[in-house]
Amino acid sequence: MILINGRRQRVHDIADRAFAYGDGLFETVAVVHSKPRLWNLHLKRLYLGCDRLGLPRPDEEQLLYEAEMLCKGVTGGVLKLIWSAGVGGRGFRRAGAEPTRVLIRSELPRYPKQWWRDGVAVRWCQLRLARQPQLAGIKHLNRLEQVLARAEWETPSVAEGILLSDNGAVVEGTMTNLFIVRGNVLYTPALTEAGVAGVMREHLLALAAALELQTQVTRLEPEDVVVADEVFVSNSLIGLWPVTELDGTPYPVGPVSQRLLVELRAREDIPDWFTA
Amino acid sequence: MILINGRRQRVHDIADRAFAYGDGLFETVAVVHSKPRLWNLHLKRLYLGCDRLGLPRPDEEQLLYEAEMLCKGVTGGVLKLIWSAGVGGRGFRRAGAEPTRVLIRSELPRYPKQWWRDGVAVRWCQLRLARQPQLAGIKHLNRLEQVLARAEWETPSVAEGILLSDNGAVVEGTMTNLFIVRGNVLYTPALTEAGVAGVMREHLLALAAALELQTQVTRLEPEDVVVADEVFVSNSLIGLWPVTELDGTPYPVGPVSQRLLVELRAREDIPDWFTA
Repeated sequence: MILINGRRQRVHDIADRAFAYGDGLFETVAVVHSKPRLWNLHLKRLYLGCDRLGLPRPDEEQLLYEAEMLCKGVTGGVLKLIWSAGVGGRGFRRAGAEPTRVLIRSELPRYPKQWWRDGVAVRWCQLRLARQPQLAGIKHLNRLEQVLARAEWETPSVAEGILLSDNGAVVEGTMTNLFIVRGNVLYTPALTEAGVAGVMREHLLALAAALELQTQVTRLEPEDVVVADEVFVSNSLIGLWPVTELDGTPYPVGPVSQRLLVELRAREDIPDWFTA
Repeated sequence: MILINGRRQRVHDIADRAFAYGDGLFETVAVVHSKPRLWNLHLKRLYLGCDRLGLPRPDEEQLLYEAEMLCKGVTGGVLKLIWSAGVGGRGFRRAGAEPTRVLIRSELPRYPKQWWRDGVAVRWCQLRLARQPQLAGIKHLNRLEQVLARAEWETPSVAEGILLSDNGAVVEGTMTNLFIVRGNVLYTPALTEAGVAGVMREHLLALAAALELQTQVTRLEPEDVVVADEVFVSNSLIGLWPVTELDGTPYPVGPVSQRLLVELRAREDIPDWFTA
């Protein structure tokens, strides 16, 4: 089901700036028992994106109203929001354009159940992410780097590819954020130059602190990941998957990812991926 | 007038990957006396883009047929082609998507006539272009950097903003390529790390060589531009504008830009921007 500017339709003006330039933002929200989850964190990131791109912010009440309408009766699903610069402007100049508001409700993607329990295999991607501080952290619609990175492998048993930036720092997965555990500390890369600051990443950092884990957001080198005690990847839909193999390096399914996953399930922050 | 996959319509499936990720390419073609101009150069760049992004190439005959149909009877205008990855795939993975072919014919933008004759004022942009060799040179749909750069100024008398890359090299304008003349040599930045390799840029390099000017495609520093004898910016629609001021630095309308402009007009490579 799709709502475009409040109307049920599947087609839209081809002159929209999202189509022409990727001029806009999006959010991928988990729906559990009729509710869009981690809504305030999604809104917060969307607003940060609006401020960075110079877009007006959406009406909060209207957006929540439409989101809840689309989520009604959904046990587990996906709600995608797109907030585009809209139709108008002249060339790259946006003056006069009015944003387009799109809400798309869809089924959960299908992933093997054992990916949560037994972990996943991931790989290093060849593509290096360019560093653009003005776009880093926000979830904008310019995602060709992720498309190219995702095209690097076909093997269905490889769940995710991990990306470095062009200066060699570890950044994220193509559709996930990366965490590592070393000793008693949970680390995740700082995303001030590249990457998307995931809503689940922020949520997990807060949960970890509440569980009295130390957390550190910092620059990580590939070597830090290789020698980690525990590695996992996260996003709003999956919560997290333990990483049990990275291009041949094995890791255990570790206690930190398990504690966090129990917490996510108990709070119903993610759909029930676990029962038949 | 708009053709989407050969049909006259203005609206399109919101699930298209161009809308979701900017997953595709475009070309902005000058139309003069019913003909799309520099067509082979546009096709060549589009094909390079297809190869880089892993997209199938469009059917050449069909594209030209539709382009000529839209251009019929047009004295001077714009034909925009969009070649999107289309509807399909799952997330960033493109598998199964069929490209969408869009042709949009529109009026020429309005620019003051004296910009060709007396030159234009341009400025340096604050934003630094990120360097992504896998996307450099091609005209893809991820254009948020250009949107942000174009938002840096409102003054209508400033025609263009010039961008550096994050390592300080001169790259291009927001919607043009940059040329400088020093001594007997015409220089333009190499675009292997950032920027769009304009069709008019390539055409002008060939014309200059035919006019027995030396040409050099190389790294340029801001200082090279400041001390140039002559500066101009180019794109497929305008041909070129001489730059007569860059943030306070004056330049003459130089002989090289004038010779090239005479040549473009004689060949009808650009619309007639000059008569009443």
